[in-house]
Amino acid sequence: MAHIQITSHISSKFNEELQDIHSHALEMGRLVEQQLEAALNAIAGDDGGMARGVIDRDRRVNEMELAIDEDCIRIIAQRQPAAGDLRFIIAVMRMIIDLERMGDEARRIAYMAAHLAKRAGTNVQYRELRHLGAHVRAMLRNSLQAFTDGDVDLAVGVLHEDKKVDREYESILRETITFMMEDPRAIPRALDIINSARSLERIGDRACNIAEYAIYYVKGEDIRHSSPDELKEL
Amino acid sequence: MAHIQITSHISSKFNEELQDIHSHALEMGRLVEQQLEAALNAIAGDDGGMARGVIDRDRRVNEMELAIDEDCIRIIAQRQPAAGDLRFIIAVMRMIIDLERMGDEARRIAYMAAHLAKRAGTNVQYRELRHLGAHVRAMLRNSLQAFTDGDVDLAVGVLHEDKKVDREYESILRETITFMMEDPRAIPRALDIINSARSLERIGDRACNIAEYAIYYVKGEDIRHSSPDELKEL
Repeated sequence: MAHIQITSHISSKFNEELQDIHSHALEMGRLVEQQLEAALNAIAGDDGGMARGVIDRDRRVNEMELAIDEDCIRIIAQRQPAAGDLRFIIAVMRMIIDLERMGDEARRIAYMAAHLAKRAGTNVQYRELRHLGAHVRAMLRNSLQAFTDGDVDLAVGVLHEDKKVDREYESILRETITFMMEDPRAIPRALDIINSARSLERIGDRACNIAEYAIYYVKGEDIRHSSPDELKEL
Repeated sequence: MAHIQITSHISSKFNEELQDIHSHALEMGRLVEQQLEAALNAIAGDDGGMARGVIDRDRRVNEMELAIDEDCIRIIAQRQPAAGDLRFIIAVMRMIIDLERMGDEARRIAYMAAHLAKRAGTNVQYRELRHLGAHVRAMLRNSLQAFTDGDVDLAVGVLHEDKKVDREYESILRETITFMMEDPRAIPRALDIINSARSLERIGDRACNIAEYAIYYVKGEDIRHSSPDELKEL
């Protein structure tokens, strides 16, 4: 963990506490990644049972968020961390909010998978959906890696994927609209596809947020709302 | 401001700093409320010009978020606030994230208003959309008021509106689907309506978040993910 390497604290207990929130946040990140994967598999397999597993496990994601958040606030209050450590703790607090919301999107996708499993219809758009899903899952994994290693280049790489995800989402949207216009009976099913695609697109947005927090704690710069040209200067 | 009344600091400068972030956050809240109102008016009036105004002003919302956030972090680092004050500052930091995202939703609604103004078609769902819009706008206003006054009852009231908003959203969704199935040429327009309704529903969700932060800083309890029964005990 890059952060731990660059920081040397008089209190080794404080060091341990920082390492703990770091590793708990990453554990939460891995759980969310698994939730996303299971939700995508539930769609691909038209598997209502798998979808319900995602919905049940979302409670665990929520519990992790609250526990980590509490630890962060306790550390700030007790240790009164200096600028660099404070930035790191705040970055973790932000990251877990995004992870929790990604978990909600995975749960939404699972709900739709459970719907789709019950609805009659063809699976024409599943391939595109899985492709988009694999893309945002890679963004999530890379953003977590960038956060773990304090790797600014990897984080900037994640940010550059966002436009591609937007284009894939737009393309699914256009195709699905055509599909609906040709066969109005397919509209309810098509809307589930569109909603799943939008949830995936939002997960991509939140992976970008995590990449931004990594840059923030390493560089001390808040790059939210920065232009692509400003990103080049990092 | 309830917070300022219950806290008495040796440093009057610290008091001023807390008041400043409080009033800046509320100013940001009012701007977001105006953005939402303008976006709804743009839809109702099929007014592309008004929609562009919302899109331009979103930059100001983003700037306010970054400025307030910076102030909060500086205060935590310099003043090493005790538990109650720290909770308040963290509540502000969370609130401005939600306000900024609400601003994004208002911008999305404005984009769709600009689209809708260009598309041929009837405005059958505008009345329902405006009704939902007025509802979530009231939730936003009440959540800001609850935050300002540290009013837990008002905050719990906002949380109870959420189910009603969900039902209104579901009703718009059902009607719009029927409408699409009857007239497939109306599908692109209908999807703009559905997206606007979903953005409004999300703004309602975020108003609930702000109500939760108000309860958090007053009561010291994190009630995210609590059940309705648990809320009754507040």
